[in-house]
Amino acid sequence: MATGIGIHTTLKMTFEQAIQKTTAALKAEGFGVLTQIDMKTTFKVKLNADFRRYVILGACNPVLAHRSLSANGDVGLLLPCNVTVQEQGEQIAVTSVNPLEMLGVLEEDPTVKAVAVEAKEKLERVINSLKG
Amino acid sequence: MATGIGIHTTLKMTFEQAIQKTTAALKAEGFGVLTQIDMKTTFKVKLNADFRRYVILGACNPVLAHRSLSANGDVGLLLPCNVTVQEQGEQIAVTSVNPLEMLGVLEEDPTVKAVAVEAKEKLERVINSLKG
Repeated sequence: MATGIGIHTTLKMTFEQAIQKTTAALKAEGFGVLTQIDMKTTFKVKLNADFRRYVILGACNPVLAHRSLSANGDVGLLLPCNVTVQEQGEQIAVTSVNPLEMLGVLEEDPTVKAVAVEAKEKLERVINSLKG
Repeated sequence: MATGIGIHTTLKMTFEQAIQKTTAALKAEGFGVLTQIDMKTTFKVKLNADFRRYVILGACNPVLAHRSLSANGDVGLLLPCNVTVQEQGEQIAVTSVNPLEMLGVLEEDPTVKAVAVEAKEKLERVINSLKG
């Protein structure tokens, strides 16, 4: 499901299982997870504030990144593609960014636009595969 | 200077100095650097492709992140704020994302919008301070 800035699904499994399954599904579409930010821990350490479990995976497909970054040096402002994994009641919500919604003025660059379309298709397959 | 998706400046110093100065300037506005992605190394390792020096700093202001993420769980798709540092001929180009340009449909959320305005002002001060 792709609405607004995110491509979304919900899973009935543990948080750790959701992270593992999402990472594996990304890998199957050529995305490595370059960064992993634990917002719950960040907020606890920096602000002593409680928050639900919430991890941001920074996913990067090197082939697509190289193609788009070679065409436009500002593409790095949009990399990596974020995939959030968060507690949502009894379930785990997994949401990928929709690259087409992130382009802004870069949309005018045909190479960047084409890569965003391809990345969006791949990320839709990632999210759809999680249900299987 | 803020045009399109980026807030931009160029520096005459070494690449390492630019990284250090940018990191310090971000810290002065309350942004910690949570992630640092070396695209040159990533492309060499993953694709055996040569690329200019290009680092993506993932900057996060915990106070602003907590405020916006508490209002809307999709904000994590836009975090952290990227700041790119890249070779550009004899100079180093430093470009921060303009959070206002990244909101997409989240622009309709008044809390998120207000945080994006504040983050943009802070990041403009960061980039402007680099010239000093």
